[in-house]
Amino acid sequence: MKAVFLTEPKKLEIRDIPIPEYESDEVLIQIKETGLCGSDLHYYKEGKVVDHIVTEPHILGHESSGVVVETGSAVTHLEKGDRVSIEPGLPCLHCEHCLSGRYNLCESVKFFGVPPFQGTFREFVTHKADFTHKLPDNLDFTMGALAEPFSVGYHTIGRLKPRLGGSLLITGAGPIGNSCMVMARLAGIMDITITDVDDFRLEIAGELGATKLINVNNENVPENRFDYAIEASGAEGAFGTVLKGIKKGGYIAFVGMSNTLIPMNLNMILKKEAVITGIYRYVNSYKPVLDILNGHSQNLSKMVTHRFNLSELPKAVDTALDPNVDSMKIIIES
Amino acid sequence: MKAVFLTEPKKLEIRDIPIPEYESDEVLIQIKETGLCGSDLHYYKEGKVVDHIVTEPHILGHESSGVVVETGSAVTHLEKGDRVSIEPGLPCLHCEHCLSGRYNLCESVKFFGVPPFQGTFREFVTHKADFTHKLPDNLDFTMGALAEPFSVGYHTIGRLKPRLGGSLLITGAGPIGNSCMVMARLAGIMDITITDVDDFRLEIAGELGATKLINVNNENVPENRFDYAIEASGAEGAFGTVLKGIKKGGYIAFVGMSNTLIPMNLNMILKKEAVITGIYRYVNSYKPVLDILNGHSQNLSKMVTHRFNLSELPKAVDTALDPNVDSMKIIIES
Amino acid sequence: MKAVFLTEPKKLEIRDIPIPEYESDEVLIQIKETGLCGSDLHYYKEGKVVDHIVTEPHILGHESSGVVVETGSAVTHLEKGDRVSIEPGLPCLHCEHCLSGRYNLCESVKFFGVPPFQGTFREFVTHKADFTHKLPDNLDFTMGALAEPFSVGYHTIGRLKPRLGGSLLITGAGPIGNSCMVMARLAGIMDITITDVDDFRLEIAGELGATKLINVNNENVPENRFDYAIEASGAEGAFGTVLKGIKKGGYIAFVGMSNTLIPMNLNMILKKEAVITGIYRYVNSYKPVLDILNGHSQNLSKMVTHRFNLSELPKAVDTALDPNVDSMKIIIES
Amino acid sequence: MKAVFLTEPKKLEIRDIPIPEYESDEVLIQIKETGLCGSDLHYYKEGKVVDHIVTEPHILGHESSGVVVETGSAVTHLEKGDRVSIEPGLPCLHCEHCLSGRYNLCESVKFFGVPPFQGTFREFVTHKADFTHKLPDNLDFTMGALAEPFSVGYHTIGRLKPRLGGSLLITGAGPIGNSCMVMARLAGIMDITITDVDDFRLEIAGELGATKLINVNNENVPENRFDYAIEASGAEGAFGTVLKGIKKGGYIAFVGMSNTLIPMNLNMILKKEAVITGIYRYVNSYKPVLDILNGHSQNLSKMVTHRFNLSELPKAVDTALDPNVDSMKIIIES
Repeated sequence: MKAVFLTEPKKLEIRDIPIPEYESDEVLIQIKETGLCGSDLHYYKEGKVVDHIVTEPHILGHESSGVVVETGSAVTHLEKGDRVSIEPGLPCLHCEHCLSGRYNLCESVKFFGVPPFQGTFREFVTHKADFTHKLPDNLDFTMGALAEPFSVGYHTIGRLKPRLGGSLLITGAGPIGNSCMVMARLAGIMDITITDVDDFRLEIAGELGATKLINVNNENVPENRFDYAIEASGAEGAFGTVLKGIKKGGYIAFVGMSNTLIPMNLNMILKKEAVITGIYRYVNSYKPVLDILNGHSQNLSKMVTHRFNLSELPKAVDTALDPNVDSMKIIIES
Repeated sequence: MKAVFLTEPKKLEIRDIPIPEYESDEVLIQIKETGLCGSDLHYYKEGKVVDHIVTEPHILGHESSGVVVETGSAVTHLEKGDRVSIEPGLPCLHCEHCLSGRYNLCESVKFFGVPPFQGTFREFVTHKADFTHKLPDNLDFTMGALAEPFSVGYHTIGRLKPRLGGSLLITGAGPIGNSCMVMARLAGIMDITITDVDDFRLEIAGELGATKLINVNNENVPENRFDYAIEASGAEGAFGTVLKGIKKGGYIAFVGMSNTLIPMNLNMILKKEAVITGIYRYVNSYKPVLDILNGHSQNLSKMVTHRFNLSELPKAVDTALDPNVDSMKIIIES
Repeated sequence: MKAVFLTEPKKLEIRDIPIPEYESDEVLIQIKETGLCGSDLHYYKEGKVVDHIVTEPHILGHESSGVVVETGSAVTHLEKGDRVSIEPGLPCLHCEHCLSGRYNLCESVKFFGVPPFQGTFREFVTHKADFTHKLPDNLDFTMGALAEPFSVGYHTIGRLKPRLGGSLLITGAGPIGNSCMVMARLAGIMDITITDVDDFRLEIAGELGATKLINVNNENVPENRFDYAIEASGAEGAFGTVLKGIKKGGYIAFVGMSNTLIPMNLNMILKKEAVITGIYRYVNSYKPVLDILNGHSQNLSKMVTHRFNLSELPKAVDTALDPNVDSMKIIIES
Repeated sequence: MKAVFLTEPKKLEIRDIPIPEYESDEVLIQIKETGLCGSDLHYYKEGKVVDHIVTEPHILGHESSGVVVETGSAVTHLEKGDRVSIEPGLPCLHCEHCLSGRYNLCESVKFFGVPPFQGTFREFVTHKADFTHKLPDNLDFTMGALAEPFSVGYHTIGRLKPRLGGSLLITGAGPIGNSCMVMARLAGIMDITITDVDDFRLEIAGELGATKLINVNNENVPENRFDYAIEASGAEGAFGTVLKGIKKGGYIAFVGMSNTLIPMNLNMILKKEAVITGIYRYVNSYKPVLDILNGHSQNLSKMVTHRFNLSELPKAVDTALDPNVDSMKIIIES
């Protein structure tokens, strides 16, 4: 089968490798679609994401859907031909985090595309059946792939637990910011301000349901106004924006990544009794997210701006990184 | 001004009484519309609701909207002519419940229409400005009145805190069951089964957004299937239905009233680790509910099946109590 | 090895059976001490507990400590000679309850002594190493066995999450009521009223830290006074007592089992906005409970009133069931 | 009566002023003891705390106990001669924060000693009776004054809601760090590491119940080890210490004040899904804190290292600020 390897930073190479063997509790999946993630681009450019370093030729990709082509002998809930969404992280199930329902914090997780675990930019993968989720009949492979970034939004909203009718500020209108926005909207937040420096992304956010778009190059973000805020840009200035933006007693989720130290106004955290929570991936999200996407897939497909074949992955990456090209989510078809 | 008094059980009488004086922190409101509540009917039939007993000629009514006609000297957020929704309970603001954010549990609350406090089936009332909420421009007086029963649904959902994408069973498709259903729908519950013995009420529930309607005279309610359940009927059998209906780890809200002892299957509560919460009125609900209704008033007006003038209150009560007349919410126009 | 079988209701028989084989992720444990539980007595008398029915000769017992005598090849955290406490339930780790951190609700749990799974009233058992917990150096086998009932108290308090300084009513001063009481005391509840009909048990509760003892045959329980209540007796009258006992806004845990329908005052649940939670066993409790017991074992040993050898199990059961013998927790030494 | 005024930074002056008039819902209190707070010292040195600026001659002090000498006509729960603890902040009771049970966030709060509101370093004050709390019979005026800093600890623990048996890191062993430590200990946290640069303060922490003392000048703080952390020093380095110190899934409270921007490791917040909450004063704390102190006052009196008369306030301030004098809490007797 074909697989695309990152052999060194900024160098992708298509190779032929054997189709992997599956265990009794696994399925063999033919990959159909995979979303290109910001972390894929990071590995591409720098060969690492924080302390995850690519040392061997490495397959990226983790936002995938496909079709089951073989099932292990112990697999009961899937059969050949099933269309599936792949939850990319396999936790140990035995550590204190797994046993307390937070398997996203498992130290031993094996996650597609995070070194040393190879990713899904290839034709076939094996995966634990328990973490392979059947697609609802009306949900296409694109939505099956997008279940991954939408899981981040679902998990973020699940941690914030916003009350019906509250107000929300989101900084960053990329795929994660928009994923959070869509989930917040569905959870009954009707007043959502989203910010970015990119009008194209803000426009998509508006189509997906944001009620107020702010290009922070042109306009200030209101202060002391929001019940909730989600920082989804990783941009240094945004951390001050969300803290100023919330009302006293407000809640903030940090979901956007950045490798720098961020300066926080302690006095404001205290005076507002702000609650800040870090968000890391997602947990127990795939089943509900697939149900949720099922009812809203037509509108949500606006997230996808480009499509490429697996062999065009280098071109897809160039597109994503080109500052002159407007893009949101890019899909790779295997 | 005119007011309708319950002089003894089943006897209503229109009388002329003086327009009340208002204090500096109060407003004088001309009542426009008032919803007829199940508790009004209870007082009408029996002269009491549990331990609240009518001993003097008594004005019922508490689900009201109107227009501000005078403002006390200390009132700042309202002025003459403002269209308002009236939050009918005035808590003491000093007891442990008030100070801990649960003023609905205040022992000293003065609530319109609950003896000895006169209600709103009259032309004018005075009210604390703090508990008088301005209507959004596009929200009509009917929605302003319905903010009261919708507050019960809002508060119920706020206590259950359902996760986005969960499943919900509601027993009872009257105004309160439907209020809960509407709020659950807006909070991202997409799988809502509602039950009743009355097909007319179930049909309205379907129009308002319930995804599965069950007439319990004809069909069984699934067991071990729902993440959440709301008992909104007060019917004895329904308490077993919700307990059986939830999955292990499920949550139940009791909002329907009944004066009987209800038999509960202890073993099932334990094995499921069911969490049951009683719901009493609402707290801090009016502002968000008015915002929420503002975006959805057209569809929600299906809750209203009849309208009468204040002087027709006896006829309205007869209509509500007539088993041969299909009704949901009845509005009284002052 | 020797094992004690319940061959029919009220008939126990000592038999010789082979020492079981252990898997790679298991340990072989020599049982040292096992507590006699109310459920053991229930099986003894009736051959069943609700829908768990003894059909084959059955070994009871599940509150056990012992010494590791063999370790499977994959076991890393235990070695021969380790003194251990045995967490008796093995969940599947794959179902929605296990994955969300509530493995006590797992439908597929294998629990020592619950048919068809044989219990620990024998000389050796095999067990998953992950659910076998090393005893702190200063904690004896008795405390290692009592970690089981104390886990119920720990889990109950973990679900109630009482605030420091709150007040608590516990109905039932048996081992579970006292386990809850001890854990509540350690969690900063300084005002604990405990009730029973048995002065002997109340006296032990007093020695363990309860601040007010009420024999309900002689004295009424205060109403509207407690922030929290725990029903630990299963006695029908106690359900009304805890509901009346709590203040508005109070929380109740049901932990005592009973196979009857219990009548609940719905109106009171609503008016108080009472929150009631069922408690089922425990989850993620053993490590913290062993730490907690470690600091308090001397006082807590007052829970134990009798000790017997494994071969004396029939005598132990008679003692527990004899209404003329004062007993609390009875320990069986293997 | 006598009162001590801060007339300009570092200048205190005793003046004679009239005893104030009390309203019908107020009491007149003779101040007995007042604790000297870090914020008092801050005003003394700089004439301001962040945006609260002393512009007029100003009386500091807010941690006070005293005796009721007069009661307003509407006061029912207090009478002349009652020994009381004074909750120093009077919230508006009408804003959204007050109505939702978080009156510590009220924008209109009137707080003793925060400009423009005069403090309690004087002989008499008037105060709302609702915020004047009767001392338990066995609790002395010192504990009545210390109810204020202990309220901060109580509130911090109430926000963290630590589970029984968890582990806690506290950075800063001043009065607030120790207040949090004492409350955590009472809430069942048995493993508490506390850090400081001052051995004298650490020693007191040890006497008050901390299980591990770390002078950060000499010893590193363990990483990835604690379930909970409380930053109570305001020292810049400590913010990294608590974030590194907690395990994945850990909770952090920020209670120590500092006027600088603090640099936070975003990547670590995300990966650990750390939850950080700001703490601001306290709410609904006095009644439970007085009950809690009542049982533990002898040990807690170790917090007090010095006592001065009201007229010696300048000396007290010098003592507190003298780097060569070991001090913890200093009490001023009126």
